[in-house]
Amino acid sequence: MENFENLRQLLDEKKYTSLMHELDKLYPADAAEFLSRLPLSQQPAVFRMLKKDTAAEIFAELDNDDKERIIAALTDSELNQITEELFTDDVVDMLEELPANVVKRVLQNVSPETRATINRFLAYPEGSAGSIMTSEYATLKGEMTVNEAIAHIRKTGYDKETIYTLYVIDNGRKLIGMLELSDLLFGDPEEKIKNLMDPDPASVLTTDDRETAAMLIAKYDLLALPVVDSEGRLVGIVTVDDALDVLENEATEDIAKMAAVTPADKPYLKTGAISIFKKRIPWLLLLMVSAIFTGRIIMHYENALGLYAILTAFIPMLMDTGGNAGSQASVTIIRSISLGEVEFKNLFPVVWKEIRVSLLCGLVLSAAAFTKALLVDRVPVNIALIVSLTILLVVITSKLVGAVLPLLAKLVRLDPAVMASPLITTIVDALALLIYFGIASAMLGI
Amino acid sequence: MENFENLRQLLDEKKYTSLMHELDKLYPADAAEFLSRLPLSQQPAVFRMLKKDTAAEIFAELDNDDKERIIAALTDSELNQITEELFTDDVVDMLEELPANVVKRVLQNVSPETRATINRFLAYPEGSAGSIMTSEYATLKGEMTVNEAIAHIRKTGYDKETIYTLYVIDNGRKLIGMLELSDLLFGDPEEKIKNLMDPDPASVLTTDDRETAAMLIAKYDLLALPVVDSEGRLVGIVTVDDALDVLENEATEDIAKMAAVTPADKPYLKTGAISIFKKRIPWLLLLMVSAIFTGRIIMHYENALGLYAILTAFIPMLMDTGGNAGSQASVTIIRSISLGEVEFKNLFPVVWKEIRVSLLCGLVLSAAAFTKALLVDRVPVNIALIVSLTILLVVITSKLVGAVLPLLAKLVRLDPAVMASPLITTIVDALALLIYFGIASAMLGI
Repeated sequence: MENFENLRQLLDEKKYTSLMHELDKLYPADAAEFLSRLPLSQQPAVFRMLKKDTAAEIFAELDNDDKERIIAALTDSELNQITEELFTDDVVDMLEELPANVVKRVLQNVSPETRATINRFLAYPEGSAGSIMTSEYATLKGEMTVNEAIAHIRKTGYDKETIYTLYVIDNGRKLIGMLELSDLLFGDPEEKIKNLMDPDPASVLTTDDRETAAMLIAKYDLLALPVVDSEGRLVGIVTVDDALDVLENEATEDIAKMAAVTPADKPYLKTGAISIFKKRIPWLLLLMVSAIFTGRIIMHYENALGLYAILTAFIPMLMDTGGNAGSQASVTIIRSISLGEVEFKNLFPVVWKEIRVSLLCGLVLSAAAFTKALLVDRVPVNIALIVSLTILLVVITSKLVGAVLPLLAKLVRLDPAVMASPLITTIVDALALLIYFGIASAMLGI
Repeated sequence: MENFENLRQLLDEKKYTSLMHELDKLYPADAAEFLSRLPLSQQPAVFRMLKKDTAAEIFAELDNDDKERIIAALTDSELNQITEELFTDDVVDMLEELPANVVKRVLQNVSPETRATINRFLAYPEGSAGSIMTSEYATLKGEMTVNEAIAHIRKTGYDKETIYTLYVIDNGRKLIGMLELSDLLFGDPEEKIKNLMDPDPASVLTTDDRETAAMLIAKYDLLALPVVDSEGRLVGIVTVDDALDVLENEATEDIAKMAAVTPADKPYLKTGAISIFKKRIPWLLLLMVSAIFTGRIIMHYENALGLYAILTAFIPMLMDTGGNAGSQASVTIIRSISLGEVEFKNLFPVVWKEIRVSLLCGLVLSAAAFTKALLVDRVPVNIALIVSLTILLVVITSKLVGAVLPLLAKLVRLDPAVMASPLITTIVDALALLIYFGIASAMLGI
């Protein structure tokens, strides 16, 4: 799939008809990859040779850079043809990313109806179900018979994004039911649609989160989900392939935030060093500055450390173990929140579970640390005791902080993913030092 | 969707016919949720009242615990009916999780053909495409006309998992093409299938990774992907809803590993404290023991620290910044590997990008650290210089270690996700201390 040798050869030999035939047979994603790897000067020429509908399919799969370059090379009428051929969600997707002057040119070159639809869709807030839906869905009327419905789909269904899920609307375009194409195929030809349809299909509002839409599709194994306005009128659908993209992007974003990186909108290898730098440096700076507390704590106990320099040797281990214990809890809870398995109302069971888990982990780690300090590091018993007692308390504290902070973030509508390892580590480090020196002061009388 | 008040009421009032009618109308996932929240003693009774096909659909959505409880309550013939009604992938899924005695009972109560299919499917390695495929797919012959094909699907398609993607096979069951149901609906009734089909559809081998299958479905926006054996014979399909589950699970597993937790197979709230403990403690222990190096390094420089106790105060900040810088790189690369965007062969561009990014990040952080050490911590200039120079080198080292280790893991077929924050932090901590004390020794002459 990665080797386009034969296509390159056809191009070199100027066998354009065969090349177009081959590109037509490829999956659009592969044809787009072939196109994007061509020398930039050749891209527009090859693209313009494609059949109108193939061109639109391939265009939808291109990167923004490639899209922009190709649009610049198209005549106004070619641009109009491509735009009219694209599904609304792909046009909207494209317009949201392209520079204003390109957007203007695209909108100038479409029919007034298409422009009205695009403008309406562009107005839905970013991240909403409305912003990812498409307007090419197939509708039926409740009074149609199965045979009439099939004939209707044969006549009107060709340019729909899917005809496998069919929506039943009343005269006011209100969504009143849903059925699958297979229901028609296996149904009695004279049966009325209203008797076959599911009268209470799952749906979302245009303003709902796109993740809500994606998660409903995943939960109910749907091929498409209807999107309605506040009056219950059908205005679009979200298809399962878009749901898949949403959930993948969501996971990627969560993962980036968990590592204290602002999520990127392009693949790593295509993102420039400066732009990666910009996504990382604010967090590094913030976290470095917040380490001011750990420095203060150590300075405060400087004299004690002068007397018992051996205490210093355990600081990294205590901080790391606290950080790891906290991350385990926070990341688990953050992912559970993302998957809709845990919410703030589960605070009590979560805390109770983490208390038991951290007690078990703490006791094991504390015993291991005690043994290691005595046998490997050969420190006095009182130092080994201080270290192991600190471990126990640090693990319990870290796990509770790690589990509770994401839930609190969720409650105040912050993104729980930000409460992951780096932030937890910074907080836990300070707590670990306070606990450590607190115990040491008490036991060593310093 | 979460409120089953009316259903509970129907149950309490023993209005079983209405209750069954209502359950029939619900999405199977919702009906399963209602069932799973019933008192355990009531579950089997309600389940047994369901219509056979509804029962199978709901059963597939239940937890393993609920499945096991219900199976125990079913008679042999009821169990046979449910199993025969389930799709193969759901049966296999269930059998893989249930205790051996239950599996035995299920297999004893199905027809010999079903048993043969199940046993064949159970033999595919865990995590393979074969292990998640289903055998209920719709096939056509190349010689059929469109009209014959539609008639064939009407007759045989009812119990298929999907009829929207149709596979064309020859007499030896070899996969020779694919088409969509819509191609039939919009095609000329007398056209031959072989002229309409895509003769080169994407497919996977039974032994390919299930993620490979899921990612092909995502890449090409497919509703189903055919699975073939080594001879090219069609043996099953993977549907898009399964691909969605695979990708979600994959992301969850990656996230768990990145936080040094063994991935769980059940939602957090349903997993017991002991079992969570077991998934976390090995990593905590391992990482704690590996902190032995940081302890050794500090002990080695104990005398220097006695002279310049102020050096200790910067240790947490240096370690944390190194850990954060390393995590940013490692987590970004790990996710890119998972998404198929980066492989080992990209080592050079990755390293070159990280060198530039880390130089930029390092310079900014180093300047900030120098200023802070002088103005806030009011340390001597030479100490501030040591700290800021260390930061620069630590950030560069950490980012390179963070970016390269996951790629190396991929090369030797280890899971890159294991090379995430906790492990990187442990390595980077030791490196940070070595760099710090190395520079301090050189500059302070200790």
